[in-house]
Amino acid sequence: MKYSIIVIGDELLIGQVTDTNSGWIARHMTPRGWDVDTIQVVPDDPDQITRAIDRAFAQTDVVLMTGGLGPTKDDITKPTLCRYFGGELVLDETVEANVRQVMERRHLKLNEYTRLQAMVPSSCRVIQNEVGTAPLMWFERDDKVLVSMPGVPFELKAMMERAVIPQLLARYNDGEDIEFRTFVVTGIIESALAMQLDEFERQMPHGIHLAYLPEGGIIRLRLTGTSTDRDQINADMDRLSRQLHDILGGHIIADGDKRLPEILGDCLREKGLTLSTAESCTGGNIAHEITSIAGSSDYFKGAVVSYANEVKTSILGVSEQDIMDHGVVSEPVVRQMVEGACRVLGTDCAIATSGIAGPGGGTPAKPVGTVWMAAKCGDRVVAQVKQLPGDRDRVITRATLEAQLLLLSLINQK
Amino acid sequence: MKYSIIVIGDELLIGQVTDTNSGWIARHMTPRGWDVDTIQVVPDDPDQITRAIDRAFAQTDVVLMTGGLGPTKDDITKPTLCRYFGGELVLDETVEANVRQVMERRHLKLNEYTRLQAMVPSSCRVIQNEVGTAPLMWFERDDKVLVSMPGVPFELKAMMERAVIPQLLARYNDGEDIEFRTFVVTGIIESALAMQLDEFERQMPHGIHLAYLPEGGIIRLRLTGTSTDRDQINADMDRLSRQLHDILGGHIIADGDKRLPEILGDCLREKGLTLSTAESCTGGNIAHEITSIAGSSDYFKGAVVSYANEVKTSILGVSEQDIMDHGVVSEPVVRQMVEGACRVLGTDCAIATSGIAGPGGGTPAKPVGTVWMAAKCGDRVVAQVKQLPGDRDRVITRATLEAQLLLLSLINQK
Repeated sequence: MKYSIIVIGDELLIGQVTDTNSGWIARHMTPRGWDVDTIQVVPDDPDQITRAIDRAFAQTDVVLMTGGLGPTKDDITKPTLCRYFGGELVLDETVEANVRQVMERRHLKLNEYTRLQAMVPSSCRVIQNEVGTAPLMWFERDDKVLVSMPGVPFELKAMMERAVIPQLLARYNDGEDIEFRTFVVTGIIESALAMQLDEFERQMPHGIHLAYLPEGGIIRLRLTGTSTDRDQINADMDRLSRQLHDILGGHIIADGDKRLPEILGDCLREKGLTLSTAESCTGGNIAHEITSIAGSSDYFKGAVVSYANEVKTSILGVSEQDIMDHGVVSEPVVRQMVEGACRVLGTDCAIATSGIAGPGGGTPAKPVGTVWMAAKCGDRVVAQVKQLPGDRDRVITRATLEAQLLLLSLINQK
Repeated sequence: MKYSIIVIGDELLIGQVTDTNSGWIARHMTPRGWDVDTIQVVPDDPDQITRAIDRAFAQTDVVLMTGGLGPTKDDITKPTLCRYFGGELVLDETVEANVRQVMERRHLKLNEYTRLQAMVPSSCRVIQNEVGTAPLMWFERDDKVLVSMPGVPFELKAMMERAVIPQLLARYNDGEDIEFRTFVVTGIIESALAMQLDEFERQMPHGIHLAYLPEGGIIRLRLTGTSTDRDQINADMDRLSRQLHDILGGHIIADGDKRLPEILGDCLREKGLTLSTAESCTGGNIAHEITSIAGSSDYFKGAVVSYANEVKTSILGVSEQDIMDHGVVSEPVVRQMVEGACRVLGTDCAIATSGIAGPGGGTPAKPVGTVWMAAKCGDRVVAQVKQLPGDRDRVITRATLEAQLLLLSLINQK
């Protein structure tokens, strides 16, 4: 089943806000066999919105629309949809009651703008927004469906899960099964990987597709199989998975579409190990990523972000002399940081980083992007230096990833 | 000047990767007076790419295209562009030399896939990719321009700045000036803000537009003025800025399009104060945000992420008895955390958080989303509790913001 996404918002077209809604929608619809045809991002403008709907309906029967609603925007999208699908704007009392309830729960006063949110086109079926004020609107005409949803990511996600996805699945059901297998691959660049898999890809059965999804240091490989014969496709996928493991061996660090901190967390939990971090250039981002996983308190104890040198020496016990002799971005320093983290935070494992994220601070010997990192597990410690490309954000993101990979490979070493 | 953006990539349509390129492009083109008409995100499919170009050229003369290039994708976008603009795929020796050089710099071996990147349509003018292997391609036909650029964000940004933006500005020049003023507003919800500014908006001169850009706890207000009379528009904008400050007073925490950690950092630097954090539920995210600002080492000393209770007591000196009596998510605990951070990390100011990010760990008295936070500046300490809505990510993000706002308002208090 194909569908289109339309994202509305001036703020997206000037780049002030990044659209994460369409990705979320796709991520949750694809496993149900729904493929996005195109995503269009358009401004809060009646003509542009109308044109986008025309284009979308020319290709697909279903359009999911997000954004363009809310107190300061309600005068554009709703009248446009009303003109498109007919009828007139009317006050919906169930929506008004919902707005009132949400505002009270948030201890906010009702005002004339919030009450405007209760106005909806008479041609739509309202889906009550259980977590916000802007109502969802389901339009249907000539067997085509458009669902208008709020742009607030939290509200969109909650209401897609609770109402929109179930209602779409109930309305459409094409009987075809879709199966996925995802593999997280590291330590190999995309072109080398493609060469290694050349023969494998040529021998894949009909109806199965392999996608490369590289993202800064990690490549996800995804097998997608579509068929009306679920057993056959499952058998094929099992066989191909085994082949991939045979070809790629240790390059595959996980089966399934998992993020690195989740893979690392699963590994720590399984082995009953605890973790801490000692971060300089990553500034707490490793701890942040690790704690973004629910349940990470099972293995993660804490972190020391030692941005200033005196914090490295006073809390982590790094030798002042070594900082003077080798510089703060050096192997002795990250080794002492990782030891200090395990000692002070009382953990089995630790990760440490010290580097030059830039834009300032580089030298000819240690240019911007130079990052020393160390990992400790039990009594084994490893350290490595990486020269990471890109701007400050990219160096921090990449160092966060490389440092976690370093620990993961240390733990998995026999 | 209007233009369109086309983003190519299967990985975007299944939501595996979030498109940040179009936002970046818009953010850097808008201040030069270039407005995005629409953004289209399409799969690696020749028909879809062709249709997207047709649609884009129907509305605008300039199309910026990103993605669909790279070793495992080069067989789709390039032949499609070649069919669209004519000519044939030919080996470009300058590109081949560039690919070779980039691979050598990264200590990678050249293989047949990477060499394929040197094949380009004869109908394009190549812009050499100085930071990667996929060449940029400038197509021109019937006074319409399409620039095909790599999808790797780092490469796109570097080459837009170095080549594409300057070349576009040189080719088009419509003589109209555009001026922006942005204001960062907190402590007021969008609908209440809209009511306060109702009269102000009605009296705005022709050619000036006010946009509301809300994003979780902060609203950016942006005045945009377009005119051929630069002096007039500047005088108008100055007057409107003063009016906005008169109406909104302390709700405006910064002039200019700044992120919160930048606003806080500027404030700390100006007053010569140093900062540390003691984080439980935010897990290092406050430290990460603060250190994402270049130059933050001027005022930021470090952080203790005390995820486990024993880290709160051992490093930060939180009383075990208070944790037992009041719970770890409580006012006494965050007050002791903020004191401990200043003491242990040797800073003037600190921020602390302790809360329940979820999905587990909630109780009837302290449901998921309950976050205690404290801020200290000199000998003044304030604490507050917030009930934050949403899932784990959202609670962490929002707590990170609210805790920084708490310190900012404490510092700015007379």
